[in-house]
Amino acid sequence: MFRPEIKVIDCSIRDGGLMNNSYFTFETVRNVYKAACAAGIDIVELGYRNSKMKFSEAEYGPWRFCDEKQLKKVADGIDKKTTKLAIMQDAHKALAEDIVPKTESIVDVIRIATYVKDIDKAILLANNATDKGYEATINIMSISKALDRELDEALQQIEEETKVMACYIVDSYGALYSEDVDYYVSKFKRYLKSKEIGIHCHNNKQLAFANTIEGIIKGVNYLDGTLYGIGRAAGNCPLELLISFLKNPKFDILPLLDVISESILPLVKEMAWGYSIPYMITGALNRHPDVAMQMMSLPDSDKAKFDYRKFYLKLTEEGQE
Amino acid sequence: MFRPEIKVIDCSIRDGGLMNNSYFTFETVRNVYKAACAAGIDIVELGYRNSKMKFSEAEYGPWRFCDEKQLKKVADGIDKKTTKLAIMQDAHKALAEDIVPKTESIVDVIRIATYVKDIDKAILLANNATDKGYEATINIMSISKALDRELDEALQQIEEETKVMACYIVDSYGALYSEDVDYYVSKFKRYLKSKEIGIHCHNNKQLAFANTIEGIIKGVNYLDGTLYGIGRAAGNCPLELLISFLKNPKFDILPLLDVISESILPLVKEMAWGYSIPYMITGALNRHPDVAMQMMSLPDSDKAKFDYRKFYLKLTEEGQE
Repeated sequence: MFRPEIKVIDCSIRDGGLMNNSYFTFETVRNVYKAACAAGIDIVELGYRNSKMKFSEAEYGPWRFCDEKQLKKVADGIDKKTTKLAIMQDAHKALAEDIVPKTESIVDVIRIATYVKDIDKAILLANNATDKGYEATINIMSISKALDRELDEALQQIEEETKVMACYIVDSYGALYSEDVDYYVSKFKRYLKSKEIGIHCHNNKQLAFANTIEGIIKGVNYLDGTLYGIGRAAGNCPLELLISFLKNPKFDILPLLDVISESILPLVKEMAWGYSIPYMITGALNRHPDVAMQMMSLPDSDKAKFDYRKFYLKLTEEGQE
Repeated sequence: MFRPEIKVIDCSIRDGGLMNNSYFTFETVRNVYKAACAAGIDIVELGYRNSKMKFSEAEYGPWRFCDEKQLKKVADGIDKKTTKLAIMQDAHKALAEDIVPKTESIVDVIRIATYVKDIDKAILLANNATDKGYEATINIMSISKALDRELDEALQQIEEETKVMACYIVDSYGALYSEDVDYYVSKFKRYLKSKEIGIHCHNNKQLAFANTIEGIIKGVNYLDGTLYGIGRAAGNCPLELLISFLKNPKFDILPLLDVISESILPLVKEMAWGYSIPYMITGALNRHPDVAMQMMSLPDSDKAKFDYRKFYLKLTEEGQE
């Protein structure tokens, strides 16, 4: 028995782009798009449409901007079946005017990523998207650091002031346990009477898949995953695990296995996402993974890279950032 | 708040030994033992005491046999504090006479690993251990393949015919979801009125830590973990995650972080445990990891190593093994 309301979102290129400044080859992005369509994935997110005033084109690859022309080239000639195409805008790094009317675009869904404090910016961009004819979501990042009274107010605003189809719990730090997922889902349900709830997990504590399942059990219907877990730091909920768990016969895991083998595995060495002790420590201490990413980027010859004790003590002594 | 009944068992050397024929250096084993003692781990398992008639000493390292002399050398001069030393016997590959009386041994706990079908052999060895003065457990392997009526009978026998302190749910295939953990814990509780329940998880679906937490929630008190997840195939529940989750102030994560850095990380390349698609596939299809381990042992130059589609189709077409 499956729940037809469940939507699966592949965000391999978007979240993976946080590990390589969105420098994927055109071929990789096209292969991922093609595989997601063939596998029956509901939505595939191919990157950010962030502002070129905030990100330099010299430093960031094309999937940080997702120009329409580029996206059309990716999708050209591929039978998309039921799969929708999404892009993400960061509330504090994107502009409304970068979104053309839906009639001129190949994009179906615009997802707005935001911290609680930027909720008004996020609502502006979400309304910009829905007004221009797109479906939209608001994804609340770093949820494990959100203050309850601010989060409550933000959720109330989203419910009252937007037409987004879903609002996401984003565990940016990979810090949540299943009981925390329960807590946030209950809270979101309390405020969001007319919206679906989504979940986006990180794998710092190897709980991304488990927490996604916990979300499903509690009624979350928008589920983010990435191929082989590709994504920032410890990575995300592996899409192949999620598809092997869900019962909806429309999903086909085989194209996902193919594209992992052909296009994702070759990236493992250069991008180095996945479980490691520094990421585990930031997850366990509810800290942003940036400090761990800095440590992981040291050369292997630098002993500090493996001084986990010192890293742990430093973060615990700092306390809350 | 913590539950004082909870016991944490490190089985890095024992389960990791399934990836290198138990060929750890003496120094590695001593470092692991020392770290486990310093971290307040309740029990540290240093290998198997299996029969030299079943395993050749030419092919297997010393930790497949754990001679008393060897163990005493490992522990020499180390302040064990409250940490007990364990070894494992496989019900179908070990002999009662290889266990000396407790008074002549440094070992505290003997864990008997068994398939349901070998339960009578397991009970014989467990009773041999308790009669000779040790504490003992029976660990039921491949639980996800056990037939209910055979498992029920085995649990009844364990309750009535042994003095083991705990009986384990062993998810050898990494096939369980949290609802399956609930199912087995309920069943074990129904039969084992005078024993504790243990859980030993594998990470094929990245659920080893999550399933261990689920066990805790449902009342399991004996929890297996390994340093950095070292263990067969996809590995085990990472001990450092488990310790970061548990609240008992007697545990200290720092010696574990040290030994991971110094003694476990250097093994990653040669032993190659951890999540990978072949292991994920055997977990998802509830199959023994052996077929995936064969695939993973192919050279990188062999394309068959990465033909996940073919592997998946082969296993699904074979159906139940």
